[in-house]
Amino acid sequence: MTDKDLQTVRVKQDRMIDMLHYTCGFGTGLRWGSEPTDTGMARLALSDTDKQARDWFVETTKALGCEVVVDAMGNTFAVRPGRSSDLPPIYAGSHLDTQPAAGRYDGILGILAGVEMLQLLRDHEIETEHPIGVVNWTNEEGARFPISMVSSGVWAEHIALEKAHNVREVGGGSATLKSELERIGYLGSVPASYRSNPMAAHFELHIEQGPILEAEKQKIGVVQGVQAYKWFTIDVEGRASHTGTTPFSARADALLLASRLISHSNHVAAKHSALASTGILTLSPGSVNTVPGNVSFSLDVRAAADETVATVVAELKRDFAQMANGEFSIGRIPLSVQWTTDFESPAVLFHQDCIGSVRAAAESVLGDSMLFRDMTSGAGHDSVYASKRCPTAMIFVPSRKGISHHPEEWTSPEDCALGAEVLCQSILRYDRMMSKSVRIF
Amino acid sequence: MTDKDLQTVRVKQDRMIDMLHYTCGFGTGLRWGSEPTDTGMARLALSDTDKQARDWFVETTKALGCEVVVDAMGNTFAVRPGRSSDLPPIYAGSHLDTQPAAGRYDGILGILAGVEMLQLLRDHEIETEHPIGVVNWTNEEGARFPISMVSSGVWAEHIALEKAHNVREVGGGSATLKSELERIGYLGSVPASYRSNPMAAHFELHIEQGPILEAEKQKIGVVQGVQAYKWFTIDVEGRASHTGTTPFSARADALLLASRLISHSNHVAAKHSALASTGILTLSPGSVNTVPGNVSFSLDVRAAADETVATVVAELKRDFAQMANGEFSIGRIPLSVQWTTDFESPAVLFHQDCIGSVRAAAESVLGDSMLFRDMTSGAGHDSVYASKRCPTAMIFVPSRKGISHHPEEWTSPEDCALGAEVLCQSILRYDRMMSKSVRIF
Repeated sequence: MTDKDLQTVRVKQDRMIDMLHYTCGFGTGLRWGSEPTDTGMARLALSDTDKQARDWFVETTKALGCEVVVDAMGNTFAVRPGRSSDLPPIYAGSHLDTQPAAGRYDGILGILAGVEMLQLLRDHEIETEHPIGVVNWTNEEGARFPISMVSSGVWAEHIALEKAHNVREVGGGSATLKSELERIGYLGSVPASYRSNPMAAHFELHIEQGPILEAEKQKIGVVQGVQAYKWFTIDVEGRASHTGTTPFSARADALLLASRLISHSNHVAAKHSALASTGILTLSPGSVNTVPGNVSFSLDVRAAADETVATVVAELKRDFAQMANGEFSIGRIPLSVQWTTDFESPAVLFHQDCIGSVRAAAESVLGDSMLFRDMTSGAGHDSVYASKRCPTAMIFVPSRKGISHHPEEWTSPEDCALGAEVLCQSILRYDRMMSKSVRIF
Repeated sequence: MTDKDLQTVRVKQDRMIDMLHYTCGFGTGLRWGSEPTDTGMARLALSDTDKQARDWFVETTKALGCEVVVDAMGNTFAVRPGRSSDLPPIYAGSHLDTQPAAGRYDGILGILAGVEMLQLLRDHEIETEHPIGVVNWTNEEGARFPISMVSSGVWAEHIALEKAHNVREVGGGSATLKSELERIGYLGSVPASYRSNPMAAHFELHIEQGPILEAEKQKIGVVQGVQAYKWFTIDVEGRASHTGTTPFSARADALLLASRLISHSNHVAAKHSALASTGILTLSPGSVNTVPGNVSFSLDVRAAADETVATVVAELKRDFAQMANGEFSIGRIPLSVQWTTDFESPAVLFHQDCIGSVRAAAESVLGDSMLFRDMTSGAGHDSVYASKRCPTAMIFVPSRKGISHHPEEWTSPEDCALGAEVLCQSILRYDRMMSKSVRIF
């Protein structure tokens, strides 16, 4: 296809958006507005409604001429044949599962745009060199089975299949990921591995989940990679005492110190253009008239580069220790501060060939280079694991007010369609580029 | 009795301490050390073990020649006759109930010292002008039925009997204070009121529950009153957002603001020689990678004078509002801060005649004015309500490391005995002083 041909492949916005809202009938969540589609989603991985969405995906892609393969993690690969049956497919991938109080776009848009791409390939009778596929990754959110991106992780052989199969659902239930795969009929026979089920490339359209594109009045983010992050639990140990009878000088107030540590982490991160956030804080004993003796809080440190995360963490470790020793005038009694590393995800850089395809597609679709920008993803996605085993890139579209993981998460139909068009063109461009380079015969 | 006679009335330390530990067999709690008595207490109000302690109190005081009266709140008044049967009794009062993970001294020492006083009056065949009594107040802790000092509050007619009777136990049980009084046989027929059951005076020996006496190497606190306090719930509303995708400038981080408010409350209180403490903090939604949208925390403000509490609160209300508006560089997005007043207790000043008796007794017992000091109580006690209806004072003895409401709460046997001796002398001195003034015949 020439560049001009590519430009005739236009997403049918209404078809795609209507289909998206149709699939949001499987697992509809909280209502937030008065329009029929003003409800969020609650489609936990491997639930009955997730099965409904999966069944829809299988039927729809089969009807569009795809062969569908389900692997041992329930990852579902719908593949439309290419001219070269010996080449691995180029995929559009994302996920159909959601958080318990989610919106209609996170993950879902990427799959629906992939299905629209399959429609367009059929509408325009486009032949590609590579097979072209859409993959629905299982349990990306980690909301029900608490390992995020677990199934792309198994595919990339970064997470062991047995460990993934045995993850138990949150909330005290007895179901495991494997037992639920079996129950809903999505425990496939194909090994979940890039070795037996390779990809030529992985492209993921996703909502930004942040406020930058909207604030800058831009339409497309050409995602360069995913920022590095580290998660810690910080345990502060002081001494519980009576709020009425204990002068400040005799206190070892774990919450007062924790408050100052949290505030300080914000200052230090800002200084290095990094992010530091605390989302969980628990304390004991927890009564109005008792100074807390123990506080435990989460600390999430992120930056575009691994070195920046390391610098922020090193500075905070030094400062927290000093602050616990009372050097910031907490009191005369030292407290203890313990760090535990819970999770760590190094910075991910996507593949220049894929990024190049996305940039060319964005330029072609938008016509104006002021309407797209390079970005770093703040959140993890299945593309992180995909990128470890095949060339990968992501495309972001704006999120209204940056809201995500919330029923009011919203992206305009126009922006969804622009994103889908960039996704489709990126894949076709990548197919063309790779075919030129691989087809030496 | 002359001052010299008074000095011959010496507490039998071993008898009192052995008896104290004997009664701690009713409701023994957590072990913290290797000695037989190195366990805490778990004797919730109106439990089976509280009934055992009450039965012991009734039997023991009857055996010492007392008449015992139980009122409609289960308050138990053991009274030894005086020469003037028309005078109301002078009481030593405190409580036998404990917190769920308590020590052996809070409340218990005051009752046991009262019983030792009754023993001494019998040993020395002392005749008093007033009847002399010991009162065990019901549910002082408010740990099981969540209104502290509820029964002295009813006696003082500051809390309605019906409200008090209907308080339901914490933890989701169906028992009320009244149903439990009935169950254990302590729903008395005498009205719970200072009108039908008056006191000439109320003296309470109590552990300090703070670190001051120990730090200053002093033995007795002559308590002048109880500091004022106000309890608030502060609700901070921001906006939940993704920790990875939301730049600081686009956040309304409720926990970051709450951290700075808590830290600031400490600064402002210190500036005014007051206390400000946060013992409870909850947040939502509560996940590692979500900036908290809502935080709720308790704020306990205390000072010796009502005006100081008012000043601190006014300053914090002004500053919190400014900080929520981002003037302390939280971000560009304003948050909201709501104050709810949960409880308020004005400053209490005890009676100069009672304080004078305690001071004279301390001087007589200790011999050295460097060994006792005037103090303000940081915590509430039944003496707060008693003081509204009769002359009242309190006596403090040291608490090791200031620890209280904890199994390791501890006061040395010697200090317990000194406190009991000061209690006994204070009451005898007050009886003598009042008798001189009332006996005009």
